[in-house]
Amino acid sequence: MLPINDFIPGFSVDCVIFGFHAGELKVLLLKMKNWERWALPGGFIEKKEDVDQGAHRVLQVRTGLDQIQLQQFYLFGKKERNAGFSQLLAQRGVIVPGEEATWFSQRFISLAYYSLVEFSLVKEPSPDYLSEAITWFPMSELPPLVLDHADMVGKAIDALREELYLRPVGRDLLPKEFTMPELQGLYEAVLGYKLDRRNFRRKMLSYDLLIDTGTKRTGGANKAPILYRFDLNKYEYALKHGLKKAF
Amino acid sequence: MLPINDFIPGFSVDCVIFGFHAGELKVLLLKMKNWERWALPGGFIEKKEDVDQGAHRVLQVRTGLDQIQLQQFYLFGKKERNAGFSQLLAQRGVIVPGEEATWFSQRFISLAYYSLVEFSLVKEPSPDYLSEAITWFPMSELPPLVLDHADMVGKAIDALREELYLRPVGRDLLPKEFTMPELQGLYEAVLGYKLDRRNFRRKMLSYDLLIDTGTKRTGGANKAPILYRFDLNKYEYALKHGLKKAF
Repeated sequence: MLPINDFIPGFSVDCVIFGFHAGELKVLLLKMKNWERWALPGGFIEKKEDVDQGAHRVLQVRTGLDQIQLQQFYLFGKKERNAGFSQLLAQRGVIVPGEEATWFSQRFISLAYYSLVEFSLVKEPSPDYLSEAITWFPMSELPPLVLDHADMVGKAIDALREELYLRPVGRDLLPKEFTMPELQGLYEAVLGYKLDRRNFRRKMLSYDLLIDTGTKRTGGANKAPILYRFDLNKYEYALKHGLKKAF
Repeated sequence: MLPINDFIPGFSVDCVIFGFHAGELKVLLLKMKNWERWALPGGFIEKKEDVDQGAHRVLQVRTGLDQIQLQQFYLFGKKERNAGFSQLLAQRGVIVPGEEATWFSQRFISLAYYSLVEFSLVKEPSPDYLSEAITWFPMSELPPLVLDHADMVGKAIDALREELYLRPVGRDLLPKEFTMPELQGLYEAVLGYKLDRRNFRRKMLSYDLLIDTGTKRTGGANKAPILYRFDLNKYEYALKHGLKKAF
């Protein structure tokens, strides 16, 4: 049973967690109990905590992910967005009639966050009262989702793609030293399309965030590519103040 | 007296309305009744309406602004953000003890929106139950604000500045035909600093949104500048899909 009286009524948070693995962008989903539907990791905010702080707690409890950057991107507030959901949960025995069913049958508005994390950070978390499995899905093969969670994933990927033009990504997703094609692979996975190699290289170098390590990756069949690493001071600065702009 | 029972409890919206006038960026504020504090136009959402729809209604009621683009940018959710506010309103006789005071003494989370509108759209709206005046303030001379409204303005200007790199602005703020220096003036007002004339021109033209009208503005002391207008189809496309990117 949920500690319902501790929560802000009618308000939830949901997290779209993107992972980057084997050149592909994936989303972390929980399988609903007794139901062939999947859901974003989400939950309720306690009356005694800040909303952003509560979002971190919810994510930690439901996925094991801790101390990651969560970015608010939209409040989903359609009037009918969770109409009938409480009955569906009750029918499947996930919640019990009474106080808990009443809680879920309120109108809920939901604040959505996204994050881009290293794939391996998610260990095998144990299922909880609402879910029976947790898995990464490739963006191209999402299963049926509950409520407006498919819209949430769609709007999150739009927000993440815009982020590429505003702030650097990659520090926590790539090995310490990486090649330009590896960095390009990350951008392509997020954007969902192929990029021109020379334009990408020129643009990335113009941001002045990369240090040429002076070494090359050897062993491959092709010409050995240069290894780069991020200049961490400049990276931090760009996170805070945005990428260098043309005006 | 507010129709309290019609509203979603513990939830409000606030709107940061930017206007562009005489080369300056301004913010629309309401003066609190019997109090030397100013506030963003905001209010509560009805249980029977979508949140975004309610934000438009609130803005219309409090400022007269109708059918403008409102952009969510952040949910302000600090636990103590409106602690003590109800008492301050009651002391000044703005709200009455009882149900109304109880309503305002709940913990509120507030969804903030911003918009950039044409200055002249705001006619002289009449004061309402909470406010006794409505005025544009230059960003550089904001008066003391209630609650966390100064943070809201700060975060809104950050969001608006980022918007410049993602989508076009200006169609609803400039005359139909305008010069490159006029467009640059708008960007400078939003960014808060001067731009290099040649870089700005090159960048703007690279977005492929401007049509050279073939005419020049005559009458000034300087060399007559070219008049441009937006290609409205390309402008719409860029609003929807983002500005042309280098990768």
